[in-house]
Amino acid sequence: MEEQLLRKVMEEVEKELKTSKGEQQSMKQAQSCTITEFVGTAIGDTIGLVIANVDHLLHEKMNIDKKYRSIGIIGGRTGAGPHIMAVDEAVKATNTEILSIELARDTKGGAGHGNLIIVGSEDVSDARRAVEVVLQTLETMMGDVYANEAGHLEFQYTARASYAIEKAFGAPLGKSFGLICAAPAAIGVVLADAAVKSANVDVVSYASPGNGGTSYSNEVILTISGDSGAVRQAILAAREIGISLLGTLGDVPVSATTPYI
Amino acid sequence: MEEQLLRKVMEEVEKELKTSKGEQQSMKQAQSCTITEFVGTAIGDTIGLVIANVDHLLHEKMNIDKKYRSIGIIGGRTGAGPHIMAVDEAVKATNTEILSIELARDTKGGAGHGNLIIVGSEDVSDARRAVEVVLQTLETMMGDVYANEAGHLEFQYTARASYAIEKAFGAPLGKSFGLICAAPAAIGVVLADAAVKSANVDVVSYASPGNGGTSYSNEVILTISGDSGAVRQAILAAREIGISLLGTLGDVPVSATTPYI
Amino acid sequence: MEEQLLRKVMEEVEKELKTSKGEQQSMKQAQSCTITEFVGTAIGDTIGLVIANVDHLLHEKMNIDKKYRSIGIIGGRTGAGPHIMAVDEAVKATNTEILSIELARDTKGGAGHGNLIIVGSEDVSDARRAVEVVLQTLETMMGDVYANEAGHLEFQYTARASYAIEKAFGAPLGKSFGLICAAPAAIGVVLADAAVKSANVDVVSYASPGNGGTSYSNEVILTISGDSGAVRQAILAAREIGISLLGTLGDVPVSATTPYI
Repeated sequence: MEEQLLRKVMEEVEKELKTSKGEQQSMKQAQSCTITEFVGTAIGDTIGLVIANVDHLLHEKMNIDKKYRSIGIIGGRTGAGPHIMAVDEAVKATNTEILSIELARDTKGGAGHGNLIIVGSEDVSDARRAVEVVLQTLETMMGDVYANEAGHLEFQYTARASYAIEKAFGAPLGKSFGLICAAPAAIGVVLADAAVKSANVDVVSYASPGNGGTSYSNEVILTISGDSGAVRQAILAAREIGISLLGTLGDVPVSATTPYI
Repeated sequence: MEEQLLRKVMEEVEKELKTSKGEQQSMKQAQSCTITEFVGTAIGDTIGLVIANVDHLLHEKMNIDKKYRSIGIIGGRTGAGPHIMAVDEAVKATNTEILSIELARDTKGGAGHGNLIIVGSEDVSDARRAVEVVLQTLETMMGDVYANEAGHLEFQYTARASYAIEKAFGAPLGKSFGLICAAPAAIGVVLADAAVKSANVDVVSYASPGNGGTSYSNEVILTISGDSGAVRQAILAAREIGISLLGTLGDVPVSATTPYI
Repeated sequence: MEEQLLRKVMEEVEKELKTSKGEQQSMKQAQSCTITEFVGTAIGDTIGLVIANVDHLLHEKMNIDKKYRSIGIIGGRTGAGPHIMAVDEAVKATNTEILSIELARDTKGGAGHGNLIIVGSEDVSDARRAVEVVLQTLETMMGDVYANEAGHLEFQYTARASYAIEKAFGAPLGKSFGLICAAPAAIGVVLADAAVKSANVDVVSYASPGNGGTSYSNEVILTISGDSGAVRQAILAAREIGISLLGTLGDVPVSATTPYI
């Protein structure tokens, strides 16, 4: 009987814990929404939206060329790399163009970025399709984001960079591309060094908290380009060290979804 | 007996939960403080302070005209729009001038801003009175701030903009003014479009995470001006859509106090 | 028996609370790490690292003079002043030079900064020693950081400023130096005024959320220089008022470790 009662109590306690935590994201259901601009939601408090005919006043204020009658809007609280990679896939797959990529200082108290990305098209169905591709792809692109209570690591890889990656980081089009990111930023410095030492790659960009490329996030972000095998090798070398170093500040960092690299 | 024990246990658990959460803000009492500079506190971890005779060294470093012997200081962790609106009312009601409005990237892990606003006067009683008006008005100005676990929405409206609104957003003095804000920023883009489409208003400013007007917060903020009825109509249209869109990422967004628009 | 059962249940509940909270920092043990770059960890999610031979690609991208073959890297999620003070001690004690000090907008949802500081040396043993000194000193330098649920206060003092303090704040070398910081920023304005009124000191810098010196943190940071007794007096005056003012927004602010000033 004691056993039974204990179990009963623990169930109650667990319920209490869940409802009192405000982090019910995992329980988030697909909410219905009848607003025509709504496309869907995804991991990282990400929402996908579309405007069929952007008002001309807004075109001007947003500094968007008027030939893009329709825009697709992607934005989330947590993540920037995953969203940029997902949009990169989306522009490959649809007739849209990247209009802007902006990084907020966010992650809900974490060390990184949130994001606002806008793609343009002449036809609304293209913008909508691009947003759908992003929402579907995002789960995968979160696979090599690893976090614990002290910080996070992020790794991205593609065999062929397209326009979103070019716009965000200045990486060469059509070449293999990799991203290595760590928070706290100190870990990122060591990962950057390890990556460039482990394979023959070109450094595309190096971002740090106070010297540009971040919105004062506590991250160092290295992006690399080059031969596909070399880029992958550099990322894998950095990933192994990163998981070990971030682990010294807390639990073993775990993937947000399923690693893809 | 089991019932009774269960209740006893749950009481203990609840106590434990409360003390272990560090979010005891709701239990915050009016604290007494004997520092002469202290005026009071208000919602959003806001404190109101006054300096009767600003030291000349500070005048210079803060870049404040020396004719303002006294300054009133308002600052909070959560909110910028509500504070600016409250200060706008305060300068209408008192003999003070707006010296500076600064936005921190804050909201305690949320997606928005905190603030630091300084008003100046020749006589300390004027600065003190202005701060008092702000602290009294803030609760109302928080009425159309709606939040859930994924983000927030903010709407502000006044029939007649004064100097704080002019200083913060460049809005025309004496005209009707409205503010539409949403986080994550993506939602703000749709609200901005909906607002300008729903009524004949002028766009005063458009702010986004990476293109100015924010301190890298995850918000899009549109400010509008024009005929009083049109401004109100634009805000109400945006508010309805905003509550629906933010709701797709979590619970139904609820007002921080009581809606006033 | 009831008593016993209740205790058993509370133990279970406490375990549950701990594992479900992700804030197990206090339980953090010295983790073993075999990465050669790893030096150690310290308070504030701080990690200390060293690179013996920085890759030339990274030298260039980080804008570091190539004569510094070795670098020491210090970075944390919470704190900037304590880290700068600790590095200041480290460069006094070792044959290293300050290469960069960058402030992230961080503190894990708090109102302040995280940091990334890099020191350079020709020999790796010097860089490693400097990092070790920082990790050992940090606990002390956190002594006059006081926090409650609404914000924090920070005070720093040294009788003789060295290169890290000069680099970070522009303070004169070899002279007594003090730092006064408060969040929310409004409190910092009053502390700055109180400090300069209470003793004959020079103002080295004044930083605020939107006017430089911060990364949009919700802080006002005043740094002062001058006669050792005067600097100390100014800090003590500000500290007393700060604890009282921040206390009006929540609990009595408590030191992160043990006050040292």
